[in-house]
Amino acid sequence: MFVSDCLSVNKEGHLTIGGCDAAELAREYGTPLYVYDEEQIRKNCRAYVKSIEDNYGGNGLAIFASKAFMCMEMCRICKEEKMGIDVASGGELYTAVKADFPMDRVVFHGNNKTKDELVLALESNVGRIVVDNIEELNMLNSLACEYKKTTKIMLRIKPGIDAHTHSFIRTGQIDSKFGFAIETGEAMAAVKLANNMTGVELCGVHCHIGSNIFDIDPFELAAKVMLGFINDAKKETGVQITELNLGGGFGIKYLSDDEPEEYGAYMNRVAKTVKDTCKGFGIPIPKIMIEPGRSVVGAEGITLYTVGSVKDIPGVRTYVSVDGGMVDNPRYALYGAAYEAMCANKADQPKSKTVTIAGKCCESGDLIQEHTDIQESESGDILAVLSTGAYNYSMASNYNRIPRPAAVMVKDSVPRVIIKRESYDDLIKNDV
Amino acid sequence: MFVSDCLSVNKEGHLTIGGCDAAELAREYGTPLYVYDEEQIRKNCRAYVKSIEDNYGGNGLAIFASKAFMCMEMCRICKEEKMGIDVASGGELYTAVKADFPMDRVVFHGNNKTKDELVLALESNVGRIVVDNIEELNMLNSLACEYKKTTKIMLRIKPGIDAHTHSFIRTGQIDSKFGFAIETGEAMAAVKLANNMTGVELCGVHCHIGSNIFDIDPFELAAKVMLGFINDAKKETGVQITELNLGGGFGIKYLSDDEPEEYGAYMNRVAKTVKDTCKGFGIPIPKIMIEPGRSVVGAEGITLYTVGSVKDIPGVRTYVSVDGGMVDNPRYALYGAAYEAMCANKADQPKSKTVTIAGKCCESGDLIQEHTDIQESESGDILAVLSTGAYNYSMASNYNRIPRPAAVMVKDSVPRVIIKRESYDDLIKNDV
Repeated sequence: MFVSDCLSVNKEGHLTIGGCDAAELAREYGTPLYVYDEEQIRKNCRAYVKSIEDNYGGNGLAIFASKAFMCMEMCRICKEEKMGIDVASGGELYTAVKADFPMDRVVFHGNNKTKDELVLALESNVGRIVVDNIEELNMLNSLACEYKKTTKIMLRIKPGIDAHTHSFIRTGQIDSKFGFAIETGEAMAAVKLANNMTGVELCGVHCHIGSNIFDIDPFELAAKVMLGFINDAKKETGVQITELNLGGGFGIKYLSDDEPEEYGAYMNRVAKTVKDTCKGFGIPIPKIMIEPGRSVVGAEGITLYTVGSVKDIPGVRTYVSVDGGMVDNPRYALYGAAYEAMCANKADQPKSKTVTIAGKCCESGDLIQEHTDIQESESGDILAVLSTGAYNYSMASNYNRIPRPAAVMVKDSVPRVIIKRESYDDLIKNDV
Repeated sequence: MFVSDCLSVNKEGHLTIGGCDAAELAREYGTPLYVYDEEQIRKNCRAYVKSIEDNYGGNGLAIFASKAFMCMEMCRICKEEKMGIDVASGGELYTAVKADFPMDRVVFHGNNKTKDELVLALESNVGRIVVDNIEELNMLNSLACEYKKTTKIMLRIKPGIDAHTHSFIRTGQIDSKFGFAIETGEAMAAVKLANNMTGVELCGVHCHIGSNIFDIDPFELAAKVMLGFINDAKKETGVQITELNLGGGFGIKYLSDDEPEEYGAYMNRVAKTVKDTCKGFGIPIPKIMIEPGRSVVGAEGITLYTVGSVKDIPGVRTYVSVDGGMVDNPRYALYGAAYEAMCANKADQPKSKTVTIAGKCCESGDLIQEHTDIQESESGDILAVLSTGAYNYSMASNYNRIPRPAAVMVKDSVPRVIIKRESYDDLIKNDV
């Protein structure tokens, strides 16, 4: 029935998440409110970690792509679940440092890392820096020499595969701001260059083929292309690349009838491809890394709002306005992203009304979803938008100087605040 | 040559804003950096204030739509320039309060104000609350009675005009989350209801027909429709509405060849329409309010970035990556908004290169502009994106936990920080 196992309906007819009554949570912590189910997040983490164990005998690492939902508590959960963390900025790295996350399990991404960020990465002894381009490779090598360090790196490679949801093509992906292209020869040139540097140790290669992908085929193809590159690198340069990071992009259920592949099926098939391909090339199986982000947290979080005005415009549509909007969930404004919504305090009633859910920003485009079915709603109802666990808090803004919501984590039916609600004083803190 | 009079090129061949060398500002304050020209902003404020003086004998108010760029310093500037301020949330109102802005010149907007926000508005004695819907009208009246106050209100009206850049149509605008529709009778019903309430005093009506509009015609039409409503309200209910807020939406130059109308021309023509229409109806000319936001600050601000990697992908395109992106300017990702960019330290050189300007976020869509001409650029150059004064800082996020930039105001060639750069500690401040 629901997009996630963490959701249910209790005997009061209210939506529950992790066993907690969503309407009660709204009353206790206020709205808008992000709510996460910890057990389900940990279950996802364990599934990824186990798949590395089962398929590669543990010679690998499941890494949480923290840009999906970064906060200190997520770092602690990943630490306990033996996940790695990928960070895409100095700010994400700083968060991991402050949460005492083991730095050897941190992978540092980014198409345009600044000098200050690379210095922070060196000082923090992050496990791997994924070098994106030549300028960065040169800058990092210089800095590492200056710091008398040899830092472990991977190279971000464009495998030439573009995975668009249900189809994939082998062209176009060269047109990306990320990484070194294979077909232009720049990827191989980077291997040679890195191999001659004293400040860096080239451990691996990394690729990422897209986001919210539902098919396994493009992942298999990417693995083949990347192993081919590792094989070519050995032949052409003598460099043995021992690590392969296959990135993330696994799809999740935003709508009830979305059908993403099971992680198990994905991992089994890709692992078989990896092993077969390595055997074919006669090369050792590299250490395999994967970087799930959305699929760890996306479906395990919801957002609760209070309904304000309901405008029934005869013959046009019905606007249900809530006390958040594009400020806490910009994904509809940005991508036209699909979400399911429901009245948390009327979860046992039929979804009899087609509405447009509008936010409270002074902007016409501030909508969370158009033409979606929810229960008959009125001012004061608690509206839940589902599958908002990824890229909602992390992309939130203070547009209209609206404070960002609190985030609550539920475990064993007990909620606790993991990110405090912003105050008005937070908003003016940097105003001079 | 430039989108704003505040920009020029100095003898070193560098871009200047308000007389300051942009490359110097970047070096002194770091990048990304928002830079504003105070004199030009004040000049715009004065033009609006003067137009109310000239056209309506001062019986009106020019109000800064603060959602375009809200901070305490903007409130101080508006206070000194005798502007009003429109706020669209409790957070914007709080900012104005903390900046000691005169509350009688504050207009409070929003399609879904919360109870807490209305209480803050009542406690702060804001000049006008623009009531959007029936739920709000009832809630506000109850609260005002509770606080033993009579608060001055305007009603947000849908005039049934939709102004899309260079064309306008008289349908469709009824499909909006904002306000009371005239044609359904709900606007007139709200007048009657408000007139019988003791907690509110109905002073005026408000409309807003769109954003970044280049034609004057739709503004004139809106004025006619609104005055017609005022006339009808007098006849049908006996209520004399004495204030008319015509909103904002005046276009600005994003590109050098954009040609928005002069404010003066707009105000003169609309004022003539207002006077002629009032004369025709035999009603007194109401107090006229206007709400420029973008046109006060938009073209008077720029964003400075440092160029990192430059990727020339043969036969495809050249990516110039900068140290900001959709985090500090989400308008290209959201709307495909057009911007001009240039190398601030090579401003006297020809724009010989067509490039895509990419941000540093871990997201393919993180672009600031595609296929735009700039000077031949390399790592370390300072890139300026022009006309970023409105809806850039105000819409900025911490996606990827990237700190928001500082904002600097330049006056008499002297720069000063008006918003401090966010620190890494700011980012984790609310993490538990």
